[in-house]
Amino acid sequence: MMPCVTSASPDARSRPIGVFDSGVGGLTVLHELLVQLPREDFVYLGDTARFPYGERAPEELARFASEIVEELLRRKAKLLVVACNAATSAALPILERRMMETTLGVELLGVVRPEALQAVAATRNGRIGLLATPVTVASRSYERAVGAVDPHVTLHPVACPTLASIIQAGEQFDERAVDSVRAACEPLIAAEVDTVILGCTHYPLISPMLQRILGPYVKLVSSGGALARQVEHALSTRGLSNPREHGEGRYSFLCTGDVGAFREIGTRFLQMPLGDVEQVRLAAAEAFA
Amino acid sequence: MMPCVTSASPDARSRPIGVFDSGVGGLTVLHELLVQLPREDFVYLGDTARFPYGERAPEELARFASEIVEELLRRKAKLLVVACNAATSAALPILERRMMETTLGVELLGVVRPEALQAVAATRNGRIGLLATPVTVASRSYERAVGAVDPHVTLHPVACPTLASIIQAGEQFDERAVDSVRAACEPLIAAEVDTVILGCTHYPLISPMLQRILGPYVKLVSSGGALARQVEHALSTRGLSNPREHGEGRYSFLCTGDVGAFREIGTRFLQMPLGDVEQVRLAAAEAFA
Repeated sequence: MMPCVTSASPDARSRPIGVFDSGVGGLTVLHELLVQLPREDFVYLGDTARFPYGERAPEELARFASEIVEELLRRKAKLLVVACNAATSAALPILERRMMETTLGVELLGVVRPEALQAVAATRNGRIGLLATPVTVASRSYERAVGAVDPHVTLHPVACPTLASIIQAGEQFDERAVDSVRAACEPLIAAEVDTVILGCTHYPLISPMLQRILGPYVKLVSSGGALARQVEHALSTRGLSNPREHGEGRYSFLCTGDVGAFREIGTRFLQMPLGDVEQVRLAAAEAFA
Repeated sequence: MMPCVTSASPDARSRPIGVFDSGVGGLTVLHELLVQLPREDFVYLGDTARFPYGERAPEELARFASEIVEELLRRKAKLLVVACNAATSAALPILERRMMETTLGVELLGVVRPEALQAVAATRNGRIGLLATPVTVASRSYERAVGAVDPHVTLHPVACPTLASIIQAGEQFDERAVDSVRAACEPLIAAEVDTVILGCTHYPLISPMLQRILGPYVKLVSSGGALARQVEHALSTRGLSNPREHGEGRYSFLCTGDVGAFREIGTRFLQMPLGDVEQVRLAAAEAFA
């Protein structure tokens, strides 16, 4: 980490931001980044061939992430974003340590800490809810992150085993699906939380329904919104903001699995035109071998 | 208008709010109402058989609106919302006058004034943009509404002839469609507006793209968001808020045209489960004959 604002070379500033996830979920994070940082270029990699990451061991996730990081660095990424709650919760500490050792000079940001910070900043009664997958809840990463910012805040985690897959399937939300969302929200309403962290990148797609069930005065904090601010801050303090003065940046997509399936589901998650998707084969990471 | 808070009967308070539009566009307004006022019941009427309203004369629109109002009053609506910019711009003054004469005691709220108020409250540099259909721009209703709140604010209107139909068609937004959005935004960027009114109920569906093109520091004001606040205020000052303490209200749908088409496009506009849709035949309005 550099302690003061430096001015990187124009070439370095014009490089893209690399964003990755196990699948399409991270596209809700990219969506926020595209809205909040319109001048930047982005390259997104979805490791769809090995989706889902949920049940895998932290060491394995760190290895996958290392391979992806190598690919994105080959594509000249100036900053890396892990847009996956499971990978961040499990593998970010390991990955950060390795990247520091190899002194690549490229920073890696994950989704958990920015959300914890924003949730603590938003709460007025000190009661924060968390909706996440069972693996993320079990990792207790949000407890640690929230506790690090303010130890007097109480986190109320709710593990939602089926919600992400219901959203990914993308069928019309019927009353049964709404009932499962309602059941997930019930303990949060009972605990009188005033802020809820969406601890899975799929959940922003149902945020209107969550807002309706939780009530209009509960603040929802999503990975994308929170992370976009931190990315902007990181670029600006490191003198790495794109020098483009007009118009919007470019964005492109890589995935390790089927290109057609990625495009179909991805369009819904990104809520913007997707354009071309390129299939990549990841090599075993050498720098971290 | 009642000058102070009165307590209406529990029966009156439990009645639904009626919302209507020429088609599905008003569902983006209903969407906001469902999120902001989860305890209320709603009945929505889309006059899809006579869609679009765009090219019709104000007197004709006022007659259509009168017929719809009668239908919604038969269904015991306690408050009426015109969720259509064209109908509001053209017919609201006529309709309001008639409703006052017939002393129905049910208030009618439209989309233009709440947006004007919220936009004036939001702007810091006094330059507000307006994106709307040609008919709405030509009616100059937003100029009047903005001017009534603050005569020192400048409104920069941009008529978008094709945008609503591109959004309604619902095909994947391609680069050509994005270019047309970009062209509509160009005069607003040149005028350095810091606030943009989305003067058509279809436009919230592309608000991420608009936000990306206009930049993250431009405030977007949509019909639904602005109106939801005014509805909440109107209910509360008239003692008409639903007494329900837990859970969410019911909502139901009526349309004058094809039910299947309404459900298909409507689901995308509402972003929530739609449930049953009933086809209605509107009778010639008697109270206003």
